[in-house]
Amino acid sequence: MAEPLRVGLAGLGTVGAGVIRLVEANAALIARRAGRPIVVTTVSARDRRKKRSVDLAPYTWDDDMVILGERPDVDVVVELVGGADGPALACARATIEAGKAFVTANKAMIAHHGLELAGKAEAAKVALKFEAAVAGGIPVIKGLREGAAANAIERVYGILNGTCNYILSTMEDTGRDFADVLREAQAKGYAEADPAFDIEGTDAAHKLSILAAIAFGSRIDFPGVDTTGITRLKAADIAQADALGYVIRLIGMAEAGDGQLFQRVQPHLVPFDHPLAHVDGATNAVVAEGNFSGRLLFQGAGAGEGPTASAVVADLIDIARGEIGAPFSVPVAELEAMEPAATGHRQGRAYLRFMVADRPGVLAEITAAMRDAGVSIESLIQKGRAGDAGAVMVAMVTHEGPESAVAEAVRLLEGSDSLTEPPLVLQILGE
Amino acid sequence: MAEPLRVGLAGLGTVGAGVIRLVEANAALIARRAGRPIVVTTVSARDRRKKRSVDLAPYTWDDDMVILGERPDVDVVVELVGGADGPALACARATIEAGKAFVTANKAMIAHHGLELAGKAEAAKVALKFEAAVAGGIPVIKGLREGAAANAIERVYGILNGTCNYILSTMEDTGRDFADVLREAQAKGYAEADPAFDIEGTDAAHKLSILAAIAFGSRIDFPGVDTTGITRLKAADIAQADALGYVIRLIGMAEAGDGQLFQRVQPHLVPFDHPLAHVDGATNAVVAEGNFSGRLLFQGAGAGEGPTASAVVADLIDIARGEIGAPFSVPVAELEAMEPAATGHRQGRAYLRFMVADRPGVLAEITAAMRDAGVSIESLIQKGRAGDAGAVMVAMVTHEGPESAVAEAVRLLEGSDSLTEPPLVLQILGE
Repeated sequence: MAEPLRVGLAGLGTVGAGVIRLVEANAALIARRAGRPIVVTTVSARDRRKKRSVDLAPYTWDDDMVILGERPDVDVVVELVGGADGPALACARATIEAGKAFVTANKAMIAHHGLELAGKAEAAKVALKFEAAVAGGIPVIKGLREGAAANAIERVYGILNGTCNYILSTMEDTGRDFADVLREAQAKGYAEADPAFDIEGTDAAHKLSILAAIAFGSRIDFPGVDTTGITRLKAADIAQADALGYVIRLIGMAEAGDGQLFQRVQPHLVPFDHPLAHVDGATNAVVAEGNFSGRLLFQGAGAGEGPTASAVVADLIDIARGEIGAPFSVPVAELEAMEPAATGHRQGRAYLRFMVADRPGVLAEITAAMRDAGVSIESLIQKGRAGDAGAVMVAMVTHEGPESAVAEAVRLLEGSDSLTEPPLVLQILGE
Repeated sequence: MAEPLRVGLAGLGTVGAGVIRLVEANAALIARRAGRPIVVTTVSARDRRKKRSVDLAPYTWDDDMVILGERPDVDVVVELVGGADGPALACARATIEAGKAFVTANKAMIAHHGLELAGKAEAAKVALKFEAAVAGGIPVIKGLREGAAANAIERVYGILNGTCNYILSTMEDTGRDFADVLREAQAKGYAEADPAFDIEGTDAAHKLSILAAIAFGSRIDFPGVDTTGITRLKAADIAQADALGYVIRLIGMAEAGDGQLFQRVQPHLVPFDHPLAHVDGATNAVVAEGNFSGRLLFQGAGAGEGPTASAVVADLIDIARGEIGAPFSVPVAELEAMEPAATGHRQGRAYLRFMVADRPGVLAEITAAMRDAGVSIESLIQKGRAGDAGAVMVAMVTHEGPESAVAEAVRLLEGSDSLTEPPLVLQILGE
């Protein structure tokens, strides 16, 4: 058997411990599949004295994660520290400059610095891999980069944040409100103490920007993702969607065409008969539509110790097998710089929800705005007080039409003292 | 840009034409992703004069597909002729012996001769790839072989035959009977003129045996697949399953443990809330349960020109990128020879359906057999005449128990003149 692939591991939190456990538990089968053993030689984390759930005695400790790649006993560095910049980025740069391979689960860093790092890795002819950065244990980067490689991908979309999906499917199952379910998710460890990154959609936007680059051969454009989180959703929205035949899911969606890149993270109404409507709890799922493959769906655990470690070690096995390749499927220099797409002409159906004062004429005001903006209403429901003192909920679904018309209707109602909060507009996921 | 990868294409039916169309339509992006162009140079089929849907003028014609790999203008042979033996097998052997790579969509050949061919390919250090042989356009071979490579796979199962799934979901949607829907499927081209291979479960068994070998590192054992097709299903079974909260799907399932390999293709009752219950029409889906990844689901088109061509060309891109590797993930010599697993001790719930004479005492006879065999009945429905003259349907669902007890109950009823046909026993897919 060939020489082992020696891993320097930076970061010993949940996923880091999972990587150690996986490499130990599945050592024999990994060696068979990789053609050589994969062994962790050196570990690094911020606090050496912190109690860990795995025994670190077999491993060399190095206080400085940044220089792990310069050690002679390390062939590849696995970075599980997180953060777009700081030590993670310094570690990535130093590793690649030292001519070693680099594996990470750090979506923020790849979304912000992936092109720079990929360019450096290509120049150094070393692997840069980040399967665990998107959709946890689901091999969707490999699925797009290799499995669907023969296709022009027309659209990629999916459920990319397990915390949001857990919250939304729990709201759906229990009828409880957002803030309430969020508190419970935090208590159970499904949501961070500071949940903004997840619930504002930023985490999903990081992942979407990475998927889009691989799917379309475009340069990563994280700032170009139009991002809305799930914080404004009410239990009444979920109930209303259900009555209309939909669930609500936070969907990240990207399309490319005419040199333009459309990227949006937003809660969507998803029809009951769509595969994504059955993705519950912390599960993630990604759909890619290829011009020959048709619709491909990849689904699985979006986070957690085991699944994320599974993706990290899959990257290590690829590296041990000598499979390197361009991190974004094509060389960085060949990635196309695309303009963010204009969205006004996009056709679709939308869900609009208004919280309004309970007095005569409000419905007429809203429907007049729709008429004046050219929005055609398919169905409308006015509900008595939905919890908020004095406010009444008006929800509607539009016929297919341009997004610009809906935006215009909302603009016409801006500043109206009939509305107790700004309208909520969600797209309805089409076929 | 590097030298092109030159393809010799054997077989110009639907999929062969699809490969030509794909390689032409997506030439530029394939070259970017593969690092070099992929070009078809030579084609071969049985009848040169047959009218084709693609223009063959740009390609050299060779009457002898078997020796395509010996041509100096061919680096890799794509075989799309089919058949476990005959010219396809001769072509595979000759290509590998000539030191060229071989790509095929031929599940029958891989199920029967995959180990021999993989051994030859490993010795010759050439690629043998067959992504298109299982689940059409879904990159599930890659998903198991590479994406889930870090995991001990505990179970792999799924919907592996699009024809059967089309028939079952159409029966479900329309309430029509098997023979009627089969005729329509044949007329529409969704089922072959001789449909036995599909509806008897053989095609799904071929695919399952290939998946099992890759998932468990076991030697392919196609004869070891316990195979039942869909021919005995009645519209009344589908209706009964629906009333109980299930759909019926032809499921291929494999598990490994203690040196034993369990492989079964059988119609199963699938609970409404299981992801496979929402897989309709000709779609395929595969679930793999890894010891770290948890449950992974891969779903997409299981057949057809575009999807199958997509999988074939994905293999070609891997080869163009220099990614070869062991065809079954580990070298053939390291694949474990497993015994077919005994199934009697398997625990599960079952659906039993009896067609019985409409006379007093029949129900007592059946329930006595259940009691004597130790089968605990969860629910039982007796329905008036279900179309068959004079026969009444009795359907039941058992509590969880060993399969051997259900088999014993059926044995006790053998030869009873109360039954107008042998009982139908289907497993219920668990969590």
